[in-house]
Amino acid sequence: MKRIGIAMLLLSTFCWAQTPDGFEPASTNVWGAAYPRVDTGGRAEFRVKAPNAGKVQVNFWGAAKLDMVKQPDGMWTVTSEPLVPGFHYYTLLIDGAEFSDPASHTFFGGGKDASGIEIPEPGSTYYLPQDVPHGAVREIWYLSKVTGTWRHALVYTPPGYDTETKMRYPVLYLQHGGGEDETGWIRQGRANFILDNLIASRSAKPMIIVMAYGYAKRAGHPDPDLTGKPFGSPEMMKAMQEMASTFEDDMTQELIPFVDSHFRTVADRDHRAMAGLSMGGMQTFQVTFDHLDLFSYIGGFSGAAGPMVLGKEKLDPKAAFHGALADPEAFSTRVHLLWLGVGTTEPAMMKAGLERLHTSLDEAKINHVFYESPGTSHEWQTWRRDLKDFAPRLFQ
Amino acid sequence: MKRIGIAMLLLSTFCWAQTPDGFEPASTNVWGAAYPRVDTGGRAEFRVKAPNAGKVQVNFWGAAKLDMVKQPDGMWTVTSEPLVPGFHYYTLLIDGAEFSDPASHTFFGGGKDASGIEIPEPGSTYYLPQDVPHGAVREIWYLSKVTGTWRHALVYTPPGYDTETKMRYPVLYLQHGGGEDETGWIRQGRANFILDNLIASRSAKPMIIVMAYGYAKRAGHPDPDLTGKPFGSPEMMKAMQEMASTFEDDMTQELIPFVDSHFRTVADRDHRAMAGLSMGGMQTFQVTFDHLDLFSYIGGFSGAAGPMVLGKEKLDPKAAFHGALADPEAFSTRVHLLWLGVGTTEPAMMKAGLERLHTSLDEAKINHVFYESPGTSHEWQTWRRDLKDFAPRLFQ
Repeated sequence: MKRIGIAMLLLSTFCWAQTPDGFEPASTNVWGAAYPRVDTGGRAEFRVKAPNAGKVQVNFWGAAKLDMVKQPDGMWTVTSEPLVPGFHYYTLLIDGAEFSDPASHTFFGGGKDASGIEIPEPGSTYYLPQDVPHGAVREIWYLSKVTGTWRHALVYTPPGYDTETKMRYPVLYLQHGGGEDETGWIRQGRANFILDNLIASRSAKPMIIVMAYGYAKRAGHPDPDLTGKPFGSPEMMKAMQEMASTFEDDMTQELIPFVDSHFRTVADRDHRAMAGLSMGGMQTFQVTFDHLDLFSYIGGFSGAAGPMVLGKEKLDPKAAFHGALADPEAFSTRVHLLWLGVGTTEPAMMKAGLERLHTSLDEAKINHVFYESPGTSHEWQTWRRDLKDFAPRLFQ
Repeated sequence: MKRIGIAMLLLSTFCWAQTPDGFEPASTNVWGAAYPRVDTGGRAEFRVKAPNAGKVQVNFWGAAKLDMVKQPDGMWTVTSEPLVPGFHYYTLLIDGAEFSDPASHTFFGGGKDASGIEIPEPGSTYYLPQDVPHGAVREIWYLSKVTGTWRHALVYTPPGYDTETKMRYPVLYLQHGGGEDETGWIRQGRANFILDNLIASRSAKPMIIVMAYGYAKRAGHPDPDLTGKPFGSPEMMKAMQEMASTFEDDMTQELIPFVDSHFRTVADRDHRAMAGLSMGGMQTFQVTFDHLDLFSYIGGFSGAAGPMVLGKEKLDPKAAFHGALADPEAFSTRVHLLWLGVGTTEPAMMKAGLERLHTSLDEAKINHVFYESPGTSHEWQTWRRDLKDFAPRLFQ
């Protein structure tokens, strides 16, 4: 029986291209999976086997749930309205319990390996593999004294890195969002293909990209006891700050030295950038403004200056960021790029916070770029576009 | 609410180390997940939320299903008997429908992203990251004329590859099993750590390892219509052979030239090996014996010569493998290593087939190694041990 199972599995790879009605299996599917499938209008059709379930839903994160309909064969199906192009996380709710769709590859988000579906964007090829020279993505491990653990990161090296052995490269540190991990920018974001294509068209300089694991717990420190502590309590804020400062120390004391000693980098601030999405944007602002000796390019994708964005405060340029913004001319000389991005359909609080930061910077006459991704929300299509706009401005 | 969710998620990373009863979260968990957890005796405790389900089971592949017990809080729990050390695939059966455990990372096996649990092997550190120089694992993409598609492979480069820029390295092509993919040897097998440790102790030569995607469909060929065709039918066998020969052509005409032109290899048969597990072992025997001009080291891990292993035939050394075995002395001169491995508790048919092949080779006086992994079955712990025994014999 095992032989039969494996053989049928192998043969199923042949059998998924029959799409008489214009729907095709999503590129995010595991091989052989006919569903979920998408049509050219961006609609997605889902199917899952759960013959004994009473209620099954497709749970698009941050959007409405779709009730699936039970078919006579025990399969549940539903077709969505047209979806915004790009990558969408989803899970299935089986009688209210949340699981990934066995037909989809998983992508780390929301703190777990969740399902995802890619909706093609008509005419967009900048994040697809094309017949141009390709860089490589490497997994690295480094032993961090800050956390006392082995830490895993991904590193993109540009085309030619292995052959041009005298060349040294600038480095972009690029961070994932909350609930995601170091694999997000490659698997969901396709940062490697975006850079391959930008480099091939000479729109961006060849660069190394380092994607770190954005969580950190300091070696030897006890777990904080947050039992019964409400959201926003001093104990909770302290724990969050402790994690953020541990990440900052790990990045600046362990990861950057590791990268500079293991890769052919130009190891100075003029050739080092940092950007991140959502939580990674906040980390970027904290790390770079604490270490302007290390960084000269700064990018916040749908998330930037923490309380200033999420709260209601306006930026005080004299006080913010250790006074780095107090003298706009000095700042522009020192920081080659300050870049903010937001999707036009992001949740109101997020959007308003970033617009407020943008306005504050304008009023303080701080040079910066403010980019708006049309029609996209707090999602990977926004951040792919951000990277496509941001990367060409680096190291010029 | 979103902010609260993410904050709680982040903080949950602090809170998983409380293990008053000797159980600890499995290393295969997503961060913050307290379950599944394992104790030093190899028992595993599972927990899943499914308040409206009528029956929930833990489904260990190739082993018994464990009935979970519903708790008053809507969680289902169960503790296993002691498990064999190593990596085990599993899924959850929720009222008979199969899903991955949201608390586990996923690992590609059985044609999908399935859950896995790592049971530590007391005293075994050879597949764990240690404080030795680490190689890197790279993702590469190559455009194959054979399949007409972009293909993805992983490549391990040994420690020093980036700094010793005049050095050239031998290459091991290492294949996954049926239902798995090119990520298996790293994520489940930990081949990178095994080699790091072997190289650090000077037990194995520094080498490059290439892990290819083991499925292939020839460009422009129509899908075979296997509707209603029984297992083993001529149509099905033809489809399987077509896939195998397409893989062989892709490997020899596309992947090997790509690797030799993109990495600092020693591009000759004396410095090229191939091995694989299960289906990958069959592929290894097909590819290497068809191309002894390309390979001189051959390894079959729990799967080797196809029909000879799975069927009842004894090996005919005069006819098998294009007559390569007809002259044992000539064979030993030409093929530097022929290596077979099997776990002592593998399914009887698999074990008997490999033992029969071993005996046939002995009778034909064909130099080879036959390795038995004690107490392990058709599973990753067998294949980790295989690699640990096999790799030191290469390129000496």
